[in-house]
Amino acid sequence: MVLARARAVDGPDKPFRFAEIKRRELDEQDVLIEIKFAGICHSDIHTAHGEWGHVHYPLVPGHEIAGLVTAVGPGVTKYQIGDRVGVGCMVDSCGECENCLRGEEQYCLNGNVPTYAGVDKYGEPTQGGYSTHIVVTEDFVVRIPDNIGLDAAAPLLCAGITTYSPLNRWQAGPGKKVAVIGLGGLGHMGVKIAHAMGAEVTVLSQTLSKKEDGLKFGAQHYYATKDPETFKELAGTFDLIINTVSAVINLDAYLGLLKLDGTLVNVGAPGEPLSVNVMSLIGHRRSFAGSMIGGIRETQEMLDFCSEHGIVPNIEVISADQIDEAYERVLASDVRYRFVIDTSTI
Amino acid sequence: MVLARARAVDGPDKPFRFAEIKRRELDEQDVLIEIKFAGICHSDIHTAHGEWGHVHYPLVPGHEIAGLVTAVGPGVTKYQIGDRVGVGCMVDSCGECENCLRGEEQYCLNGNVPTYAGVDKYGEPTQGGYSTHIVVTEDFVVRIPDNIGLDAAAPLLCAGITTYSPLNRWQAGPGKKVAVIGLGGLGHMGVKIAHAMGAEVTVLSQTLSKKEDGLKFGAQHYYATKDPETFKELAGTFDLIINTVSAVINLDAYLGLLKLDGTLVNVGAPGEPLSVNVMSLIGHRRSFAGSMIGGIRETQEMLDFCSEHGIVPNIEVISADQIDEAYERVLASDVRYRFVIDTSTI
Repeated sequence: MVLARARAVDGPDKPFRFAEIKRRELDEQDVLIEIKFAGICHSDIHTAHGEWGHVHYPLVPGHEIAGLVTAVGPGVTKYQIGDRVGVGCMVDSCGECENCLRGEEQYCLNGNVPTYAGVDKYGEPTQGGYSTHIVVTEDFVVRIPDNIGLDAAAPLLCAGITTYSPLNRWQAGPGKKVAVIGLGGLGHMGVKIAHAMGAEVTVLSQTLSKKEDGLKFGAQHYYATKDPETFKELAGTFDLIINTVSAVINLDAYLGLLKLDGTLVNVGAPGEPLSVNVMSLIGHRRSFAGSMIGGIRETQEMLDFCSEHGIVPNIEVISADQIDEAYERVLASDVRYRFVIDTSTI
Repeated sequence: MVLARARAVDGPDKPFRFAEIKRRELDEQDVLIEIKFAGICHSDIHTAHGEWGHVHYPLVPGHEIAGLVTAVGPGVTKYQIGDRVGVGCMVDSCGECENCLRGEEQYCLNGNVPTYAGVDKYGEPTQGGYSTHIVVTEDFVVRIPDNIGLDAAAPLLCAGITTYSPLNRWQAGPGKKVAVIGLGGLGHMGVKIAHAMGAEVTVLSQTLSKKEDGLKFGAQHYYATKDPETFKELAGTFDLIINTVSAVINLDAYLGLLKLDGTLVNVGAPGEPLSVNVMSLIGHRRSFAGSMIGGIRETQEMLDFCSEHGIVPNIEVISADQIDEAYERVLASDVRYRFVIDTSTI
């Protein structure tokens, strides 16, 4: 058993505090990781604040984890001590269902085990990456390529794969026009990855305030969705739209921007249901779809793709004492584009 | 110019009456068709009743047309006098836009010309198949295979292609589990075609009243959607669901029946918007899509497919005097499964 230092919250309205948490003894296939950096995802905030249902407090969030292997179980074959590795949004799954066998563990029919706020195979609550160590079965560990810093690697484990997976599945690439709604933590990764895939990328953001950044990240066009002209000008334009915004949107207006056979994919889920006029779909055989992170194999593929194309997120590294403040800044959209906790400061 | 006998309505609440309508002189590429049979589609009723926006009365509905070529324009190369032919929901399109060039004339970016309640290239209102003759440019005429009776062929031109097209595009076939919502004019064609494509077909109908028919048409399973157990038992089952019902449905409940990467395709559009919880899509990367009839090339392909597999709709042939009564029976779901007008009775 390893005692890890961590930052935990005790309730929806509580500040983060220092905590000591126990990580399990290494099982046959387990890897012990010394966490170096942990990204702050908007999901962490929803969960910490109890907005996504009952939470077992104290809670240690964090599912964008990058670090070094410091010990391995006797049966581990994929990793050695010293390896640079990452852990994303899940740490286990049944491994036996149809979806797991396809390498789509995120859609495990028996429910994957989330990195935090889940329950592990021993019935213990899982605790996340705002800590110094974590124990994970090797099948849910990915390798971080040498040319990606561990600080920059962390957000790839959620923001990166969440955008890479739908871009990959719906075949963003040369000749394709792709729009990304929202230029936040997910959106800025979506732009970089879609651009690297060879697509012509457009950012659809509420205002033009981040236009310069968007173009720097690889977008060729940038439109303000507050301007009604945008929806007229871009009608029937896109093959694929990735919606990274979890707020309720005027879905029909955005579907109108798709060309024949185009797809709008939501990677976030608003709390309220959306309204859709079926004619928005029928008129040009459009689709409205959803996508959730990616499988482990695809996550590794995404890391290798980012390595090959020199893609990293834009990050602001903070100390553990700044987590509460960072949460407030995320809620105020005052982050360009991802906070990453230096876990040596815990 | 040809004077055709027809049945027309003069307003939303008016009964059908005899009318004489003018069909244009044959242009270079035009085909004159002596209509033998015309199917009654639910769209005819919506349009005749003025439920789909402003209508130019008197209106002659009908977009499921089967007949014989009786004259051809000087430039016609595809058809000869005596050919057995059909006309579906559209009679023209721009022929130049991206979608027309792909053979997807139904999604013409400049708007296709509907067979009735549209405006033709001369600015004249189009009038449909409840008549003895029609003039159509040869590119919007399809050939009816010899082994399909003209009476049975008529409904294939709308009900057939409307279900064939999404089944084709979303690859219904061996190893695929396909559900059809609703066993009406469209639904019964969907079952027959999906079965012929090799899929394992399930009917989802409000009650089990048509179960015997459904199984006869090729469905292997038949469930009543009024029974809440259906949604538990079939959770995560289907690769593809074709929704032929235009009423408002509990979309989230039906999306829950799709497996990973499954798609629910609406071929009808309810008047009211639908509500969708995005989590219903994200959880298993599902899609909600829409589809509208099919292109001319695909319509011919569908007819040839039906010929090869011996597929015809189940019809009830009526005389022109029975149209009003047939409308009432369609609205009361009292039709198995398509009314077809014998136009010799007009």
